[in-house]
Amino acid sequence: MSSRKPPVWPELAIVLVEPKLDLNVGAVARALKNFNIGRLVLVAPGCDHLSDKARALSCGADDLLEKAEVFADLESALAGFRLVVGTTARIGKYCSPVYTPAESAAKIAELGAGLPAAIMFGREDFGLSREQRRYSHILSSIPVNPDFSSLNLAQSVLLYGYEMSRHFPAAVASLPAAAAPADQAELQGMYSHLRQTLTRHGFLNPSNPDHLLEYLRRLFGRAGMSSREVRIIRGIMSLIDRLGDR
Amino acid sequence: MSSRKPPVWPELAIVLVEPKLDLNVGAVARALKNFNIGRLVLVAPGCDHLSDKARALSCGADDLLEKAEVFADLESALAGFRLVVGTTARIGKYCSPVYTPAESAAKIAELGAGLPAAIMFGREDFGLSREQRRYSHILSSIPVNPDFSSLNLAQSVLLYGYEMSRHFPAAVASLPAAAAPADQAELQGMYSHLRQTLTRHGFLNPSNPDHLLEYLRRLFGRAGMSSREVRIIRGIMSLIDRLGDR
Repeated sequence: MSSRKPPVWPELAIVLVEPKLDLNVGAVARALKNFNIGRLVLVAPGCDHLSDKARALSCGADDLLEKAEVFADLESALAGFRLVVGTTARIGKYCSPVYTPAESAAKIAELGAGLPAAIMFGREDFGLSREQRRYSHILSSIPVNPDFSSLNLAQSVLLYGYEMSRHFPAAVASLPAAAAPADQAELQGMYSHLRQTLTRHGFLNPSNPDHLLEYLRRLFGRAGMSSREVRIIRGIMSLIDRLGDR
Repeated sequence: MSSRKPPVWPELAIVLVEPKLDLNVGAVARALKNFNIGRLVLVAPGCDHLSDKARALSCGADDLLEKAEVFADLESALAGFRLVVGTTARIGKYCSPVYTPAESAAKIAELGAGLPAAIMFGREDFGLSREQRRYSHILSSIPVNPDFSSLNLAQSVLLYGYEMSRHFPAAVASLPAAAAPADQAELQGMYSHLRQTLTRHGFLNPSNPDHLLEYLRRLFGRAGMSSREVRIIRGIMSLIDRLGDR
């Protein structure tokens, strides 16, 4: 769990254009670090991204705040990027097509690792202006409730980070997978055991033991049993057998 | 954009177990409303979810805070739910399998609309305890940087809301799709026009006009051109034609 992982995307940057609130920048740094994204670019920030509040909200991602790249204007901030995704909540008719976060992440992944790509977010209250949007290769938006479409900045950044990480699983921890399913021999052995034991003790009808057994087949089949789970169920049958033998 | 949309999932609830900070509960309410999720359940909250801070952070989702369902214990809070997803950052060996947010959302969608499902989040600092986790049908986790795995509560809720909304697109605004691609007749008409005009004015080599033209075919083909875009390019060729005729 504590092995060092490489950044999701060595040259992926999150660009915040004119962020107003230091606590938002701090929360963004935390979200970036959650997904191992290493570059934070600030364009004409309207706040001090090294303030105590920003540091507190970063919850330990101070390093990202400290190495944030600060630019006075968007043109110089974006000069080196080969793909720029502009996020927007304004999905008017001149913006089509607008890519979902998943589609945008796929587009960045398509560019290939190691080439600088930016996902750009506008000011908390207004988003990207029309002029700022013009630097985008593609436009992207999170499809939300049209009656309540204002998203928190750091939450939005987290969502794009999550979508990027799905393309670069090496950058995040892997979740424990399900154990391999038991094989048919194990399963049929278990069902024979169930039939024998439960019939012997009068739980299943000897003239039609498979009637109730079929429910158990459907239940266990749906869940997908591991070898260990098969052994646990057989253990319970063995317990019944022992109790019946006393 | 302002038509009323139905909640993402009439009976989907986000359950916060022992939330400590009112501002987190407020930020969660905002995230729920972003995805049209209508039910917020609070279990033994350690804060006042109707405080000024909570309301401020909800950014207008006060209604969700006001109708939050508050319970003293987890058992009564969860009694009516038919599927409970427990979120956890502790992905130890007894938790396997752990579902991703996407897999969890698919599992909830499989349950079917209208049946009560809950996604449960533990305390900000500790997450769900082992005892609290036992109420879960399935466990879920957001795969993150193993060296920086503590996620903000409202950000996590937003991510699950987003994954749910992908199964219930009717609950969120749809993004403007790309215009239909131009048909082959339009495209070949455009390429003929390009060949003719650009050869006539010496831009293409008359003995091999298709050499440079092939680059344009690859460029325009990769982007996928709409009928309107074909007309714009042809308009530029017509401009060249007119200027050449003067």
